[in-house]
Amino acid sequence: MRVRSFSLKRFLLGDPLASSQLAHEKLTKIKALAVFSSDALSSVAYATEEILFVLVAVGSAAFGFSIPIALAIAALLIIVGISYQQTIHAYPAGGGAYIVAKDNLGTIISLVAGASLLFSYTLTVSVSISAGVAAITSWLPGLLHYRAILAVTAVAIVTIINLRGMSESATIFAAPTYLFIAGILSLIIYGLARWLIAGSLPQVEVLQPAHSELTFASISIFLLLRAFSAGCTALTGIEAISDGVPAFRPPAADNAAKTLLTMIAILTTMFLGITFLANQVGATPSHAETVLSQIGRALFGEGPLYIGVQIATALILLLAANTAFADFPRLSYFMARDGYMPRQMGNLGDRLVYSNGIILLAAIASILILTFNGDTHSLLPMYAVGVFISFTISQLGMVRRWLRLRSPGWLPNTMINLIGGFTTLAVFLIILTTRFTQGAWIVVVLIPAIVASLLRIRHHYLEVASKLSLEEYGAPYRMRHARVVMPIGGVHRGVLKALEFARSLSPDVTAVYVESSKEEGEKVRQKWKKWGDGTRLVAIPSPYRSVIGPLVGYLKQLEEERQPNDVITIILPHFVPARWWENLLHNQNAWLIRLALLLREGYIVIDVPYHLAGLPSMEE
Amino acid sequence: MRVRSFSLKRFLLGDPLASSQLAHEKLTKIKALAVFSSDALSSVAYATEEILFVLVAVGSAAFGFSIPIALAIAALLIIVGISYQQTIHAYPAGGGAYIVAKDNLGTIISLVAGASLLFSYTLTVSVSISAGVAAITSWLPGLLHYRAILAVTAVAIVTIINLRGMSESATIFAAPTYLFIAGILSLIIYGLARWLIAGSLPQVEVLQPAHSELTFASISIFLLLRAFSAGCTALTGIEAISDGVPAFRPPAADNAAKTLLTMIAILTTMFLGITFLANQVGATPSHAETVLSQIGRALFGEGPLYIGVQIATALILLLAANTAFADFPRLSYFMARDGYMPRQMGNLGDRLVYSNGIILLAAIASILILTFNGDTHSLLPMYAVGVFISFTISQLGMVRRWLRLRSPGWLPNTMINLIGGFTTLAVFLIILTTRFTQGAWIVVVLIPAIVASLLRIRHHYLEVASKLSLEEYGAPYRMRHARVVMPIGGVHRGVLKALEFARSLSPDVTAVYVESSKEEGEKVRQKWKKWGDGTRLVAIPSPYRSVIGPLVGYLKQLEEERQPNDVITIILPHFVPARWWENLLHNQNAWLIRLALLLREGYIVIDVPYHLAGLPSMEE
Repeated sequence: MRVRSFSLKRFLLGDPLASSQLAHEKLTKIKALAVFSSDALSSVAYATEEILFVLVAVGSAAFGFSIPIALAIAALLIIVGISYQQTIHAYPAGGGAYIVAKDNLGTIISLVAGASLLFSYTLTVSVSISAGVAAITSWLPGLLHYRAILAVTAVAIVTIINLRGMSESATIFAAPTYLFIAGILSLIIYGLARWLIAGSLPQVEVLQPAHSELTFASISIFLLLRAFSAGCTALTGIEAISDGVPAFRPPAADNAAKTLLTMIAILTTMFLGITFLANQVGATPSHAETVLSQIGRALFGEGPLYIGVQIATALILLLAANTAFADFPRLSYFMARDGYMPRQMGNLGDRLVYSNGIILLAAIASILILTFNGDTHSLLPMYAVGVFISFTISQLGMVRRWLRLRSPGWLPNTMINLIGGFTTLAVFLIILTTRFTQGAWIVVVLIPAIVASLLRIRHHYLEVASKLSLEEYGAPYRMRHARVVMPIGGVHRGVLKALEFARSLSPDVTAVYVESSKEEGEKVRQKWKKWGDGTRLVAIPSPYRSVIGPLVGYLKQLEEERQPNDVITIILPHFVPARWWENLLHNQNAWLIRLALLLREGYIVIDVPYHLAGLPSMEE
Repeated sequence: MRVRSFSLKRFLLGDPLASSQLAHEKLTKIKALAVFSSDALSSVAYATEEILFVLVAVGSAAFGFSIPIALAIAALLIIVGISYQQTIHAYPAGGGAYIVAKDNLGTIISLVAGASLLFSYTLTVSVSISAGVAAITSWLPGLLHYRAILAVTAVAIVTIINLRGMSESATIFAAPTYLFIAGILSLIIYGLARWLIAGSLPQVEVLQPAHSELTFASISIFLLLRAFSAGCTALTGIEAISDGVPAFRPPAADNAAKTLLTMIAILTTMFLGITFLANQVGATPSHAETVLSQIGRALFGEGPLYIGVQIATALILLLAANTAFADFPRLSYFMARDGYMPRQMGNLGDRLVYSNGIILLAAIASILILTFNGDTHSLLPMYAVGVFISFTISQLGMVRRWLRLRSPGWLPNTMINLIGGFTTLAVFLIILTTRFTQGAWIVVVLIPAIVASLLRIRHHYLEVASKLSLEEYGAPYRMRHARVVMPIGGVHRGVLKALEFARSLSPDVTAVYVESSKEEGEKVRQKWKKWGDGTRLVAIPSPYRSVIGPLVGYLKQLEEERQPNDVITIILPHFVPARWWENLLHNQNAWLIRLALLLREGYIVIDVPYHLAGLPSMEE
């Protein structure tokens, strides 16, 4: 019963899965860490670098400040991590900021959370893919020129993998995460060991170090806060686990909480380690080579170990993009269920994934990459703002929840989320202020616009439902074919078939001919006399040779005579040529008539096709 | 009765004209010279320059050869002019190469002529507009960078003028032709007088003279022939009058013949004069300044006289493009009447012009301009080849005609056309050989491809006519609504309206529901029990959640039970939201079903719209 024609689709995406197979698609902790933590873990590929990019404004002497800044961010990581632990247990069915806010803070705030999450997920894809490409171009600088096109190609690949379905993607993606963790930890351990033994590390030579993009005369509080803001990109992605609890094997909440703890520990270690090593090898931010690549090159040389770290970095960043491909469609589904997103977002595709959400995400992320030419550095400020909006809403929503429920242990729980919430709110304000001109302003403009659209969508659905509702619906009215009108351009077999159909609807059929030339009109009248089977033919004069205008004018006259429940049925004879391009050789009046009547009430337009393919022809 | 909505169209194009106004659109000789001769006359703006562009390959010492070459071309002009005189009298209804060939040389050759004419007309637009822009950028070199975009804008302007209708364009365009003739003749007379008195002329300083693009060691026969070929672009456009005889006021043929003679005289004088002056002022071909501009600058300085000549040149070149806008649509109309072009080419627009031909011409010419970045020099070799194909066919067609008719005076007539035909054939071969690699090869590839398409189009029309023909058509068969099937996605007011319509067609209606979830299915069954008015409901299981596949599968089962003349009627309930973008928020299953059934015979698909605009809603 399945149509077997879409072989390319089947080749890329695999065979369709039945709805009954849905339950099996659950993840072990090992796989879940790969799917949900890659976004968070991979941020170490750019977070340290971002701090240095700010500090370079006052010269490399200021790089030392990156260590205390990184420690502050590590503390922030732990606070937010603990705060999210509570969310996982409170919302075992999945507790993204949207759900938590909807539950506790009302519609508008939940939509703000939803909008900022959707926005952040999109940036996860753009940023991670761009950073992954940067890992490759640091190793192979010849590819630097092609980074945008490489990034868009990578988005396409991740998209296809996700359209195939989640469990398979986890299998494909599990190895690289652990490879990356192993690679970075080896780098850190080796670097630390060598530093402890030798007292110093080899210095890296940076080919195109970034010049100061800004003019700061000296270290200021504002500059340090901006550097801190830049480093907060290390936190992006840590909320993914709390969104994705239902994808875990049971006991889902416990497994998810444990996975979150593990992730925070790994992330903090890697971030601090990389920042320390960056200082020790004299890494300098550069648009041509990532800081992580500089560290790798300094410690491992340019041999296979270095290349391995670069490849693993690129792969985990692909995985990070994949996190968003799991979460964006899921959130879209939640929001579509509530009526705030187009209903199509809630459709499970034939591989049991929300295909429309996946495709939408890929499209927007690709546009962002092309707009910013695949430059991670330009995308990150927006990303950080979006992420901290949802962090703040999520934590404050939890506070509200504890105060409302007063369940056992509510006081310490409240305190934890309160600390988490106020910390993230403060960080949000710092990022917004210090990076406003660097792209953070875009978020301020975009989020309200998205929220307004979401509200508009729901309003539309409620309006349609109300208008279509059967409540208070009386007995269906009787419909009458007031008139059956058939516009014709000539008399041929196709027209006679349509006439046959028209007469099956009503004995009272009117054929209408728009006459722009007397001679042609006379021919049609003669032919109609012979073949028209006694049906009425009306000729409408068209001095300006237009077909649609005079026809609509005629129909408006009929409308005036119509009873309220009458319907005017328009029969359009229409022949279907054997080959599609042959349509270009015929006038498109049938379509134009349909278009002209689209928004007028009280018409039903019926194409009566006459298929030419396969008919005998005198012409050979 | 006219729809009053297309105000922009009316503003640009004027009010529609009634068919009865057609006869008034005839041209006086003065206006006709402006409309039909501008192409030919304006070629002097580039013909001399093209000769010098070839000769520069062996250095400026060779420029003196341009004089004998120009004399040879002048002789050619007179031969072809006289030859075309005869065509005008023989074909007072319009004797383009297509008509003459169709009449005398058979279908295929007439199509070759038609194809090369259509091709040449397109190049007339691209070349003339590009050369017109070059006249302006010679005067204002700052605009050189924008020449492609300036040229495309100019095409758009000429297009709009032509869509307004012919007589008005003649009025708009008459003055510039005479201004150009006056300007060039003044330049020549002044230059000659000064040369006669002083014995020499001031030398021009050329800023960016062209370097040799080719490597010729010395003057060779091949080089001279190539220079001659380049200069033959002076002949482009002289056939326009013979194509356009019916546009002349009666006696049309006499008026047209006189206009042709006048034109040849003016053209020859201007071409020889310009070539002579170019030699005397030491003009050198350049991509930054035209040779004509160099002459003007040398003789008139950079004051108003020089600027006047440049502007007049640009304007007549616009007019030359306009020639093609008169001829391309007219030829398309002839060919559409014979079935070789899409029928739409034969439709008179509401301003009594063949609007589709005008728009097609403008589109192709713009693409050519953008492809060659508005460079006259790259376009001219193709142009010349195309033009000489049609010249040759036209003259040889006339020879055939005299031999066939043997009317009084046939022998001298034959001789005249025979000389004309063999001369143009020889020139065609020379151009093809000497400029093959410079673009002439494109014509060799394109013309056969166009001819093949033209034949294909006619074959299609004959096939359709034969399949739709009422000859041997028996009594119309009785059509029976074998089944009325209504796919539904739920039960609401729109569905009940469609059900009402379905039951007006047949008492035997089947509602079909594609069920991908048991719970949803149960809800629909309950609602249908209440509202379905006893109609049968079939639920088709869809384990893979696809709607179209299972539905088509169900219909295929019905097809098997169908009698030959039965038709399966599909009713699609379909609500029309108040605002167009709201369609994006609903699934497009109605369209997908229509698409899936488009090519299957024996179906009639009926959308039953339910308009939501204006309905009361609970939601405010």
